[in-house]
Amino acid sequence: MSEFELIAEIRHKSGIADPEGSTILRALPALGFEEISNVSVGKAIRFAVSASNASEAVAKGEELCKRLLANPVLESFKVSVIS
Amino acid sequence: MSEFELIAEIRHKSGIADPEGSTILRALPALGFEEISNVSVGKAIRFAVSASNASEAVAKGEELCKRLLANPVLESFKVSVIS
Repeated sequence: MSEFELIAEIRHKSGIADPEGSTILRALPALGFEEISNVSVGKAIRFAVSASNASEAVAKGEELCKRLLANPVLESFKVSVIS
Repeated sequence: MSEFELIAEIRHKSGIADPEGSTILRALPALGFEEISNVSVGKAIRFAVSASNASEAVAKGEELCKRLLANPVLESFKVSVIS
């Protein structure tokens, strides 16, 4: 068993309101950031998993997202290995 | 000018309390996830930047993090180009 560091990025599904992203977008012109658009805010959750290989670690991370971290009605997620 | 899609990962600096991460960690044994540890919760903010090249886009993204998205006392950030 080795220890893998994983990151899960959890985002709103397309079509789901993202009030935090809209608020940031509205603040940008006043701060001089006219070249920035399409802001969306999600979560980046890092965790360590002990597993025998990287694909088993990712599978456990995806199971964790499904059962605890993400809301499958509103959110999608992607789990990747960092190290 | 081209359009670059960027992601900013904003995390608590080490030593800063992460109550959301601690709460997730406490819930894991009851759900059968004994092999998961070191949970930390941050933000993943995606946005598009129009810039003449990728490094200029990242520089604008970092400026945005410094001025609006991250709290430099409590949080660190990393901006990367997705496409």
